[in-house]
Amino acid sequence: MKNNELHILVTNDDGVYAPGVLALAQELRKLGKVTIVAPDHNWSASGHAKTLNRPLRVKEVQIADGSMAFACDGAPSDCVALPVLGLLPEPITFVVSGINPNANLGHDVTYSGTVTAAMEATIWNIPAIAVSLDAPEYNKGTLDYSTAARVAAIMVQKVIKNGLPQGVLLNVNVPYLKLDELKGYAITRQGLRVYRDELVRREDPRGRPYYWIGGDAPGGVPDDNTDIGEIKKGYVSVTPLSLDLTAYSTMDEIKKWSF
Amino acid sequence: MKNNELHILVTNDDGVYAPGVLALAQELRKLGKVTIVAPDHNWSASGHAKTLNRPLRVKEVQIADGSMAFACDGAPSDCVALPVLGLLPEPITFVVSGINPNANLGHDVTYSGTVTAAMEATIWNIPAIAVSLDAPEYNKGTLDYSTAARVAAIMVQKVIKNGLPQGVLLNVNVPYLKLDELKGYAITRQGLRVYRDELVRREDPRGRPYYWIGGDAPGGVPDDNTDIGEIKKGYVSVTPLSLDLTAYSTMDEIKKWSF
Repeated sequence: MKNNELHILVTNDDGVYAPGVLALAQELRKLGKVTIVAPDHNWSASGHAKTLNRPLRVKEVQIADGSMAFACDGAPSDCVALPVLGLLPEPITFVVSGINPNANLGHDVTYSGTVTAAMEATIWNIPAIAVSLDAPEYNKGTLDYSTAARVAAIMVQKVIKNGLPQGVLLNVNVPYLKLDELKGYAITRQGLRVYRDELVRREDPRGRPYYWIGGDAPGGVPDDNTDIGEIKKGYVSVTPLSLDLTAYSTMDEIKKWSF
Repeated sequence: MKNNELHILVTNDDGVYAPGVLALAQELRKLGKVTIVAPDHNWSASGHAKTLNRPLRVKEVQIADGSMAFACDGAPSDCVALPVLGLLPEPITFVVSGINPNANLGHDVTYSGTVTAAMEATIWNIPAIAVSLDAPEYNKGTLDYSTAARVAAIMVQKVIKNGLPQGVLLNVNVPYLKLDELKGYAITRQGLRVYRDELVRREDPRGRPYYWIGGDAPGGVPDDNTDIGEIKKGYVSVTPLSLDLTAYSTMDEIKKWSF
Protein backbone atom coordinates (compact mmCIF):
# COMPACT_ATOMS: atom_id res chain seq x y z
CA MET A 1 0.00 0.00 0.00
CA LYS A 2 1.35 3.38 -0.94
CA ASN A 3 -0.71 6.38 0.00
CA ASN A 4 -0.20 9.40 -2.25
CA GLU A 5 -1.75 11.76 0.27
CA LEU A 6 0.49 10.58 3.06
CA HIS A 7 3.45 12.80 3.95
CA ILE A 8 5.16 11.53 7.05
CA LEU A 9 7.53 13.75 8.98
CA VAL A 10 10.13 11.65 10.73
CA THR A 11 12.05 13.15 13.62
CA ASN A 12 13.86 12.01 16.74
CA ASP A 13 15.81 13.34 19.71
CA ASP A 14 19.10 11.58 19.02
CA GLY A 15 20.01 13.65 16.00
CA VAL A 16 19.62 13.39 12.26
CA TYR A 17 22.46 10.90 11.78
CA ALA A 18 21.15 8.38 14.33
CA PRO A 19 20.53 4.88 12.93
CA GLY A 20 17.05 4.75 14.48
CA VAL A 21 15.73 7.60 12.36
CA LEU A 22 17.15 6.06 9.19
CA ALA A 23 15.62 2.64 9.89
CA LEU A 24 12.29 4.34 10.54
CA ALA A 25 12.39 6.46 7.38
CA GLN A 26 13.36 3.50 5.18
CA GLU A 27 10.42 1.44 6.42
CA LEU A 28 7.90 4.29 6.25
CA ARG A 29 8.86 5.16 2.65
CA LYS A 30 6.99 1.98 1.70
CA LEU A 31 3.79 3.71 2.83
CA GLY A 32 4.16 7.18 1.35
CA LYS A 33 6.31 10.28 1.14
CA VAL A 34 8.74 10.73 4.04
CA THR A 35 10.71 13.80 5.06
CA ILE A 36 13.24 13.76 7.88
CA VAL A 37 13.67 16.92 9.95
CA ALA A 38 15.72 16.10 13.02
CA PRO A 39 18.04 17.87 15.45
CA ASP A 40 21.65 18.43 14.49
CA HIS A 41 22.72 17.04 17.87
CA ASN A 42 21.43 14.78 20.64
CA TRP A 43 18.57 16.25 22.72
CA SER A 44 17.69 13.29 24.94
CA ALA A 45 15.72 14.20 28.07
CA SER A 46 15.22 17.67 26.65
CA GLY A 47 11.46 17.90 27.19
CA HIS A 48 8.87 19.85 25.25
CA ALA A 49 10.45 23.06 24.05
CA LYS A 50 9.49 25.91 21.80
CA THR A 51 12.48 27.96 20.78
CA LEU A 52 11.31 31.57 20.73
CA ASN A 53 14.36 33.49 21.93
CA ARG A 54 16.63 32.76 19.01
CA PRO A 55 16.28 31.96 15.32
CA LEU A 56 16.57 28.41 14.10
CA ARG A 57 18.83 27.12 11.34
CA VAL A 58 17.87 24.30 9.01
CA LYS A 59 20.46 22.62 6.82
CA GLU A 60 20.03 19.92 4.18
CA VAL A 61 22.34 17.01 4.87
CA GLN A 62 22.99 13.58 3.40
CA ILE A 63 22.43 10.62 5.69
CA ALA A 64 23.88 7.11 5.63
CA ASP A 65 21.72 5.66 2.85
CA GLY A 66 22.52 8.58 0.55
CA SER A 67 19.15 10.25 0.96
CA MET A 68 18.67 13.86 2.05
CA ALA A 69 17.37 15.05 5.40
CA PHE A 70 17.01 18.36 7.18
CA ALA A 71 19.15 19.01 10.25
CA CYS A 72 17.82 21.71 12.57
CA ASP A 73 19.59 23.33 15.51
CA GLY A 74 16.38 23.41 17.56
CA ALA A 75 14.80 20.87 19.89
CA PRO A 76 12.86 17.83 18.59
CA SER A 77 9.59 19.72 19.09
CA ASP A 78 10.99 22.60 17.01
CA CYS A 79 11.73 20.05 14.27
CA VAL A 80 8.00 19.38 14.21
CA ALA A 81 6.83 22.99 14.62
CA LEU A 82 8.85 24.33 11.66
CA PRO A 83 7.44 21.92 9.03
CA VAL A 84 3.95 22.27 10.51
CA LEU A 85 4.26 26.04 10.15
CA GLY A 86 5.32 25.77 6.52
CA LEU A 87 9.02 25.00 6.23
CA LEU A 88 8.42 22.37 3.56
CA PRO A 89 6.62 22.87 0.25
CA GLU A 90 4.12 20.09 1.07
CA PRO A 91 2.04 19.87 4.23
CA ILE A 92 2.75 17.17 6.80
CA THR A 93 -0.05 14.66 7.37
CA PHE A 94 1.58 12.38 9.96
CA VAL A 95 4.47 12.58 12.42
CA VAL A 96 6.53 9.62 13.62
CA SER A 97 9.21 10.29 16.21
CA GLY A 98 11.99 7.80 16.87
CA ILE A 99 13.26 5.20 16.90
CA ASN A 100 14.70 5.97 20.31
CA PRO A 101 17.24 3.34 21.38
CA ASN A 102 15.85 3.35 24.92
CA ALA A 103 12.31 2.79 26.09
CA ASN A 104 10.20 5.80 27.09
CA LEU A 105 8.09 4.43 29.91
CA GLY A 106 6.16 5.82 32.86
CA HIS A 107 7.16 9.34 33.83
CA ASP A 108 9.76 9.41 31.04
CA VAL A 109 7.11 10.81 28.73
CA THR A 110 7.33 14.44 29.83
CA TYR A 111 11.16 14.43 29.74
CA SER A 112 11.42 12.53 26.49
CA GLY A 113 12.36 14.47 23.37
CA THR A 114 10.99 11.55 21.34
CA VAL A 115 7.56 11.74 22.98
CA THR A 116 7.35 15.53 23.22
CA ALA A 117 8.08 15.83 19.48
CA ALA A 118 4.97 13.71 18.91
CA MET A 119 3.09 15.90 21.44
CA GLU A 120 3.94 18.96 19.36
CA ALA A 121 2.29 17.37 16.34
CA THR A 122 -0.79 16.51 18.38
CA ILE A 123 -1.12 20.14 19.46
CA TRP A 124 -1.33 21.01 15.76
CA ASN A 125 -3.93 18.25 15.19
CA ILE A 126 -1.60 16.04 13.19
CA PRO A 127 -1.69 12.33 14.06
CA ALA A 128 1.53 11.31 15.76
CA ILE A 129 3.26 8.36 17.32
CA ALA A 130 6.50 8.06 19.28
CA VAL A 131 8.46 4.84 18.83
CA SER A 132 11.12 3.59 21.22
CA LEU A 133 13.09 0.39 21.40
CA ASP A 134 13.65 -1.29 24.74
CA ALA A 135 17.28 -2.09 24.00
CA PRO A 136 18.86 -4.10 26.78
CA GLU A 137 21.60 -1.64 27.72
CA TYR A 138 22.18 2.03 27.16
CA ASN A 139 24.24 2.79 24.07
CA LYS A 140 25.34 -0.79 23.60
CA GLY A 141 26.66 -0.31 20.09
CA THR A 142 25.00 -1.67 16.99
CA LEU A 143 21.30 -2.20 17.52
CA ASP A 144 18.82 -3.94 15.25
CA TYR A 145 16.00 -1.46 14.63
CA SER A 146 14.17 -3.61 12.06
CA THR A 147 11.44 -4.92 14.37
CA ALA A 148 10.68 -1.49 15.77
CA ALA A 149 10.64 0.05 12.27
CA ARG A 150 8.19 -2.60 11.09
CA VAL A 151 6.02 -2.03 14.16
CA ALA A 152 6.07 1.72 13.47
CA ALA A 153 4.81 1.14 9.94
CA ILE A 154 2.05 -1.15 11.21
CA MET A 155 1.01 1.45 13.79
CA VAL A 156 0.93 4.23 11.18
CA GLN A 157 -1.43 2.10 9.07
CA LYS A 158 -3.62 1.35 12.10
CA VAL A 159 -3.87 5.04 12.95
CA ILE A 160 -4.69 5.98 9.36
CA LYS A 161 -7.42 3.34 9.28
CA ASN A 162 -8.96 4.02 12.68
CA GLY A 163 -8.07 7.63 13.44
CA LEU A 164 -6.89 9.05 16.74
CA PRO A 165 -9.10 11.06 19.07
CA GLN A 166 -8.22 14.77 19.18
CA GLY A 167 -5.47 15.58 21.65
CA VAL A 168 -4.22 11.99 21.86
CA LEU A 169 -0.91 10.54 20.65
CA LEU A 170 0.45 7.02 20.86
CA ASN A 171 3.58 6.18 22.81
CA VAL A 172 4.84 2.92 21.32
CA ASN A 173 7.56 0.89 23.01
CA VAL A 174 8.96 -2.18 21.27
CA PRO A 175 10.73 -5.08 22.98
CA TYR A 176 14.18 -5.92 21.63
CA LEU A 177 13.03 -9.08 19.85
CA LYS A 178 12.71 -10.36 16.32
CA LEU A 179 9.37 -9.61 14.66
CA ASP A 180 8.12 -13.20 14.98
CA GLU A 181 9.14 -13.35 18.64
CA LEU A 182 6.77 -10.52 19.62
CA LYS A 183 3.89 -11.72 21.81
CA GLY A 184 1.54 -9.18 20.23
CA TYR A 185 0.31 -5.66 20.98
CA ALA A 186 -0.89 -4.48 24.38
CA ILE A 187 -2.85 -1.26 24.88
CA THR A 188 -1.37 -0.05 28.13
CA ARG A 189 -1.53 2.66 30.72
CA GLN A 190 1.52 4.64 31.79
CA GLY A 191 3.33 2.74 34.55
CA LEU A 192 5.35 3.96 37.47
CA ARG A 193 8.99 4.71 36.77
CA VAL A 194 11.45 4.43 39.64
CA TYR A 195 14.31 6.84 39.12
CA ARG A 196 17.58 6.01 40.80
CA ASP A 197 19.31 9.31 40.23
CA GLU A 198 22.11 10.27 42.57
CA LEU A 199 23.88 13.55 43.04
CA VAL A 200 27.59 13.21 42.27
CA ARG A 201 29.69 16.10 43.52
CA ARG A 202 33.14 16.67 42.05
CA GLU A 203 35.69 19.45 42.06
CA ASP A 204 37.29 20.97 39.03
CA PRO A 205 41.08 21.51 38.80
CA ARG A 206 40.52 24.90 40.45
CA GLY A 207 38.75 23.40 43.47
CA ARG A 208 35.28 24.59 42.51
CA PRO A 209 32.42 22.09 42.79
CA TYR A 210 30.31 20.79 39.95
CA TYR A 211 27.50 18.29 40.00
CA TRP A 212 26.41 15.36 37.90
CA ILE A 213 22.98 13.83 37.98
CA GLY A 214 24.30 10.28 38.18
CA GLY A 215 23.04 6.97 39.51
CA ASP A 216 21.68 3.86 37.85
CA ALA A 217 19.33 3.71 34.88
CA PRO A 218 15.68 4.00 35.96
CA GLY A 219 13.70 0.96 36.97
CA GLY A 220 9.95 0.63 37.12
CA VAL A 221 7.02 -1.20 38.63
CA PRO A 222 6.08 -3.95 36.13
CA ASP A 223 2.34 -3.97 36.82
CA ASP A 224 0.05 -5.77 34.39
CA ASN A 225 -1.46 -3.55 31.70
CA THR A 226 1.23 -0.91 32.09
CA ASP A 227 3.85 0.00 29.52
CA ILE A 228 6.57 -1.23 31.87
CA GLY A 229 4.83 -4.51 32.65
CA GLU A 230 3.74 -5.51 29.15
CA ILE A 231 6.98 -4.71 27.37
CA LYS A 232 8.83 -6.96 29.82
CA LYS A 233 6.50 -9.80 28.78
CA GLY A 234 7.37 -9.31 25.12
CA TYR A 235 4.40 -7.25 23.97
CA VAL A 236 4.60 -4.06 21.96
CA SER A 237 3.27 -1.46 24.42
CA VAL A 238 0.89 1.09 22.91
CA THR A 239 -0.02 3.81 25.41
CA PRO A 240 -2.49 6.50 24.33
CA LEU A 241 -1.34 9.76 25.91
CA SER A 242 -3.51 12.81 26.40
CA LEU A 243 -2.43 16.43 26.12
CA ASP A 244 -5.04 17.16 28.76
CA LEU A 245 -3.18 16.55 32.02
CA THR A 246 -6.10 17.50 34.26
CA ALA A 247 -6.32 15.12 37.22
CA TYR A 248 -10.12 14.90 36.89
CA SER A 249 -10.54 12.35 39.66
CA THR A 250 -9.12 14.81 42.21
CA MET A 251 -11.24 17.85 41.28
CA ASP A 252 -14.18 17.09 43.56
CA GLU A 253 -11.87 16.52 46.51
CA ILE A 254 -10.00 19.79 45.96
CA LYS A 255 -13.28 21.69 45.58
CA LYS A 256 -14.02 20.70 49.19
CA TRP A 257 -11.01 22.63 50.47
CA SER A 258 -12.38 25.77 52.10
CA PHE A 259 -11.31 28.73 50.02
CA MET B 1 1.76 30.45 61.34
CA LYS B 2 5.39 29.46 60.94
CA ASN B 3 6.08 25.80 60.37
CA ASN B 4 9.50 24.64 61.60
CA GLU B 5 9.35 21.48 59.53
CA LEU B 6 8.56 23.34 56.34
CA HIS B 7 11.42 23.88 53.91
CA ILE B 8 10.16 25.37 50.68
CA LEU B 9 12.28 25.27 47.57
CA VAL B 10 11.43 28.23 45.35
CA THR B 11 12.41 28.09 41.71
CA ASN B 12 11.27 29.54 38.39
CA ASP B 13 12.10 29.55 34.70
CA ASP B 14 12.88 33.25 34.31
CA GLY B 15 16.14 33.15 36.24
CA VAL B 16 17.26 33.73 39.79
CA TYR B 17 17.17 37.54 39.54
CA ALA B 18 13.58 37.73 38.29
CA PRO B 19 11.25 39.83 40.46
CA GLY B 20 8.63 37.07 40.53
CA VAL B 21 10.86 34.64 42.40
CA LEU B 22 11.80 37.30 44.95
CA ALA B 23 8.17 38.27 45.62
CA LEU B 24 7.35 34.60 46.07
CA ALA B 25 10.25 33.90 48.43
CA GLN B 26 9.51 36.96 50.57
CA GLU B 27 5.91 35.92 51.07
CA LEU B 28 6.68 32.25 51.69
CA ARG B 29 9.32 33.08 54.34
CA LYS B 30 6.36 33.98 56.58
CA LEU B 31 5.42 30.29 56.53
CA GLY B 32 8.78 28.58 57.03
CA LYS B 33 12.30 28.17 55.73
CA VAL B 34 12.76 29.09 52.08
CA THR B 35 15.67 28.32 49.75
CA ILE B 36 15.85 29.65 46.22
CA VAL B 37 17.55 27.50 43.57
CA ALA B 38 16.82 28.96 40.17
CA PRO B 39 18.36 29.03 36.71
CA ASP B 40 21.15 31.50 35.97
CA HIS B 41 19.32 32.56 32.79
CA ASN B 42 15.85 32.53 31.28
CA TRP B 43 14.50 29.09 30.33
CA SER B 44 10.94 29.95 29.30
CA ALA B 45 9.25 27.31 27.12
CA SER B 46 12.09 24.95 27.91
CA GLY B 47 9.99 21.96 28.95
CA HIS B 48 10.80 19.16 31.33
CA ALA B 49 14.50 18.44 31.13
CA LYS B 50 17.01 16.31 32.97
CA THR B 51 20.56 17.35 32.26
CA LEU B 52 22.58 14.16 32.06
CA ASN B 53 25.16 14.89 29.37
CA ARG B 54 27.05 17.62 31.21
CA PRO B 55 27.79 18.58 34.79
CA LEU B 56 25.85 21.36 36.46
CA ARG B 57 27.26 24.36 38.24
CA VAL B 58 25.64 25.96 41.26
CA LYS B 59 26.71 29.38 42.50
CA GLU B 60 25.57 31.32 45.55
CA VAL B 61 24.42 34.79 44.53
CA GLN B 62 22.86 37.79 46.26
CA ILE B 63 19.46 38.86 45.01
CA ALA B 64 17.70 42.22 45.17
CA ASP B 65 16.59 42.13 48.83
CA GLY B 66 20.11 41.25 49.97
CA SER B 67 19.32 37.60 50.66
CA MET B 68 21.26 34.70 49.17
CA ALA B 69 20.05 32.34 46.49
CA PHE B 70 21.55 29.56 44.40
CA ALA B 71 21.94 30.10 40.66
CA CYS B 72 22.24 26.93 38.61
CA ASP B 73 23.19 26.60 34.96
CA GLY B 74 20.65 23.81 34.44
CA ALA B 75 16.99 23.85 33.50
CA PRO B 76 14.23 24.66 36.02
CA SER B 77 13.63 20.93 36.54
CA ASP B 78 17.35 20.48 37.27
CA CYS B 79 17.01 23.23 39.91
CA VAL B 80 14.52 20.93 41.61
CA ALA B 81 16.36 17.65 41.03
CA LEU B 82 19.64 18.83 42.57
CA PRO B 83 18.18 19.89 45.95
CA VAL B 84 15.93 16.81 45.99
CA LEU B 85 19.02 14.64 45.48
CA GLY B 86 20.89 16.28 48.33
CA LEU B 87 22.45 19.55 47.20
CA LEU B 88 21.28 21.36 50.35
CA PRO B 89 22.02 20.35 53.94
CA GLU B 90 18.31 20.20 54.79
CA PRO B 91 15.72 18.20 52.85
CA ILE B 92 13.08 19.98 50.79
CA THR B 93 9.47 19.45 51.92
CA PHE B 94 7.64 21.64 49.40
CA VAL B 95 8.35 23.14 45.98
CA VAL B 96 6.82 26.35 44.65
CA SER B 97 7.70 27.38 41.11
CA GLY B 98 7.12 30.90 39.89
CA ILE B 99 5.90 33.52 39.83
CA ASN B 100 5.84 33.42 36.06
CA PRO B 101 4.86 36.81 34.57
CA ASN B 102 2.66 35.10 31.98
CA ALA B 103 -0.15 32.64 32.50
CA ASN B 104 0.49 28.93 31.87
CA LEU B 105 -2.82 27.74 30.50
CA GLY B 106 -4.04 24.85 28.37
CA HIS B 107 -1.32 23.09 26.41
CA ASP B 108 1.27 25.50 27.83
CA VAL B 109 1.81 23.10 30.71
CA THR B 110 4.15 20.67 28.93
CA TYR B 111 6.25 23.49 27.45
CA SER B 112 6.34 25.55 30.61
CA GLY B 113 9.54 25.57 32.62
CA THR B 114 7.48 26.86 35.56
CA VAL B 115 5.09 23.92 35.46
CA THR B 116 7.66 21.24 34.59
CA ALA B 117 9.80 22.31 37.57
CA ALA B 118 6.78 21.51 39.77
CA MET B 119 6.33 18.23 37.86
CA GLU B 120 9.88 17.26 38.74
CA ALA B 121 9.06 17.68 42.45
CA THR B 122 5.91 15.58 42.04
CA ILE B 123 7.96 12.76 40.50
CA TRP B 124 9.99 12.75 43.72
CA ASN B 125 6.81 12.76 45.84
CA ILE B 126 7.26 16.29 47.11
CA PRO B 127 4.14 18.47 47.09
CA ALA B 128 4.45 21.17 44.45
CA ILE B 129 2.59 24.07 42.93
CA ALA B 130 3.34 26.24 39.91
CA VAL B 131 2.24 29.87 40.14
CA SER B 132 1.79 32.19 37.17
CA LEU B 133 0.43 35.68 36.81
CA ASP B 134 -1.87 36.55 33.96
CA ALA B 135 -0.17 39.86 33.30
CA PRO B 136 -1.91 41.81 30.56
CA GLU B 137 1.00 42.01 28.14
CA TYR B 138 4.23 40.16 27.66
CA ASN B 139 7.17 41.76 29.40
CA LYS B 140 5.33 44.98 30.09
CA GLY B 141 7.84 46.33 32.58
CA THR B 142 7.22 46.60 36.30
CA LEU B 143 4.61 44.13 37.46
CA ASP B 144 2.90 43.90 40.84
CA TYR B 145 3.45 40.33 42.04
CA SER B 146 1.93 40.88 45.49
CA THR B 147 -1.47 39.28 44.81
CA ALA B 148 0.07 36.21 43.18
CA ALA B 149 2.58 35.86 46.02
CA ARG B 150 -0.19 36.05 48.60
CA VAL B 151 -2.22 33.48 46.65
CA ALA B 152 0.84 31.20 46.50
CA ALA B 153 1.17 31.33 50.29
CA ILE B 154 -2.51 30.56 50.72
CA MET B 155 -2.24 27.62 48.33
CA VAL B 156 0.82 26.24 50.16
CA GLN B 157 -1.16 26.31 53.40
CA LYS B 158 -4.14 24.60 51.75
CA VAL B 159 -1.92 21.85 50.37
CA ILE B 160 -0.21 21.32 53.73
CA LYS B 161 -3.59 21.08 55.44
CA ASN B 162 -5.34 18.84 52.89
CA GLY B 163 -2.51 17.00 51.15
CA LEU B 164 -2.18 16.29 47.46
CA PRO B 165 -2.86 12.90 45.89
CA GLN B 166 0.28 11.11 44.70
CA GLY B 167 1.35 12.12 41.22
CA VAL B 168 -0.68 15.35 41.23
CA LEU B 169 0.56 18.95 41.23
CA LEU B 170 -1.36 22.21 41.16
CA ASN B 171 -1.08 24.67 38.32
CA VAL B 172 -2.17 28.01 39.77
CA ASN B 173 -2.87 31.01 37.56
CA VAL B 174 -3.64 34.36 39.13
CA PRO B 175 -5.49 37.23 37.44
CA TYR B 176 -3.68 40.56 37.41
CA LEU B 177 -5.88 42.11 40.09
CA LYS B 178 -5.56 43.40 43.62
CA LEU B 179 -6.15 40.79 46.31
CA ASP B 180 -9.58 42.15 47.25
CA GLU B 181 -10.62 42.30 43.59
CA LEU B 182 -10.26 38.52 43.12
CA LYS B 183 -13.60 36.78 42.61
CA GLY B 184 -12.36 33.69 44.46
CA TYR B 185 -10.79 30.36 43.61
CA ALA B 186 -11.96 28.06 40.82
CA ILE B 187 -10.88 24.42 40.56
CA THR B 188 -10.51 24.10 36.82
CA ARG B 189 -9.66 21.70 34.05
CA GLN B 190 -7.03 22.44 31.45
CA GLY B 191 -8.55 24.46 28.63
CA LEU B 192 -7.75 24.59 24.96
CA ARG B 193 -4.93 26.88 23.94
CA VAL B 194 -4.96 28.31 20.44
CA TYR B 195 -1.44 28.93 19.25
CA ARG B 196 -0.94 31.54 16.58
CA ASP B 197 2.66 30.76 15.74
CA GLU B 198 3.93 31.71 12.32
CA LEU B 199 7.11 30.79 10.54
CA VAL B 200 9.19 33.86 9.77
CA ARG B 201 11.94 33.28 7.22
CA ARG B 202 14.84 35.72 7.03
CA GLU B 203 18.25 35.77 5.44
CA ASP B 204 21.50 36.53 7.21
CA PRO B 205 24.04 39.00 5.74
CA ARG B 206 25.54 36.07 3.83
CA GLY B 207 22.23 35.18 2.17
CA ARG B 208 21.60 32.03 4.20
CA PRO B 209 18.10 31.50 5.60
CA TYR B 210 17.17 31.37 9.26
CA TYR B 211 13.77 30.93 10.83
CA TRP B 212 11.91 32.46 13.74
CA ILE B 213 8.88 30.93 15.36
CA GLY B 214 6.93 34.17 15.32
CA GLY B 215 3.28 35.16 15.31
CA ASP B 216 0.93 36.50 17.96
CA ALA B 217 0.74 35.47 21.60
CA PRO B 218 -1.47 32.42 22.07
CA GLY B 219 -5.19 32.76 22.58
CA GLY B 220 -7.53 30.22 24.03
CA VAL B 221 -11.09 28.96 24.24
CA PRO B 222 -12.58 30.55 27.39
CA ASP B 223 -14.93 27.69 28.32
CA ASP B 224 -16.49 27.66 31.78
CA ASN B 225 -14.59 25.63 34.36
CA THR B 226 -11.36 25.79 32.38
CA ASP B 227 -8.20 27.60 33.44
CA ILE B 228 -8.58 29.95 30.46
CA GLY B 229 -12.24 30.68 31.14
CA GLU B 230 -12.15 31.21 34.90
CA ILE B 231 -9.06 33.40 35.01
CA LYS B 232 -10.72 35.73 32.50
CA LYS B 233 -13.63 36.09 34.93
CA GLY B 234 -11.30 37.11 37.75
CA TYR B 235 -10.94 33.81 39.57
CA VAL B 236 -7.67 32.27 40.67
CA SER B 237 -7.50 29.13 38.52
CA VAL B 238 -6.31 26.01 40.34
CA THR B 239 -5.83 23.08 37.93
CA PRO B 240 -4.78 19.73 39.37
CA LEU B 241 -2.41 18.14 36.87
CA SER B 242 -1.55 14.46 36.74
CA LEU B 243 1.80 12.93 35.83
CA ASP B 244 -0.17 10.04 34.40
CA LEU B 245 -0.95 11.18 30.86
CA THR B 246 -2.76 7.97 29.87
CA ALA B 247 -5.83 8.79 27.77
CA TYR B 248 -7.91 6.22 29.67
CA SER B 249 -11.14 7.03 27.87
CA THR B 250 -9.61 5.97 24.55
CA MET B 251 -8.16 2.62 25.63
CA ASP B 252 -11.26 0.52 24.97
CA GLU B 253 -11.61 2.00 21.50
CA ILE B 254 -7.98 1.34 20.59
CA LYS B 255 -8.22 -2.23 21.93
CA LYS B 256 -10.82 -2.82 19.19
CA TRP B 257 -8.27 -2.13 16.45
CA SER B 258 -7.40 -5.50 14.96
CA PHE B 259 -3.79 -6.25 15.81
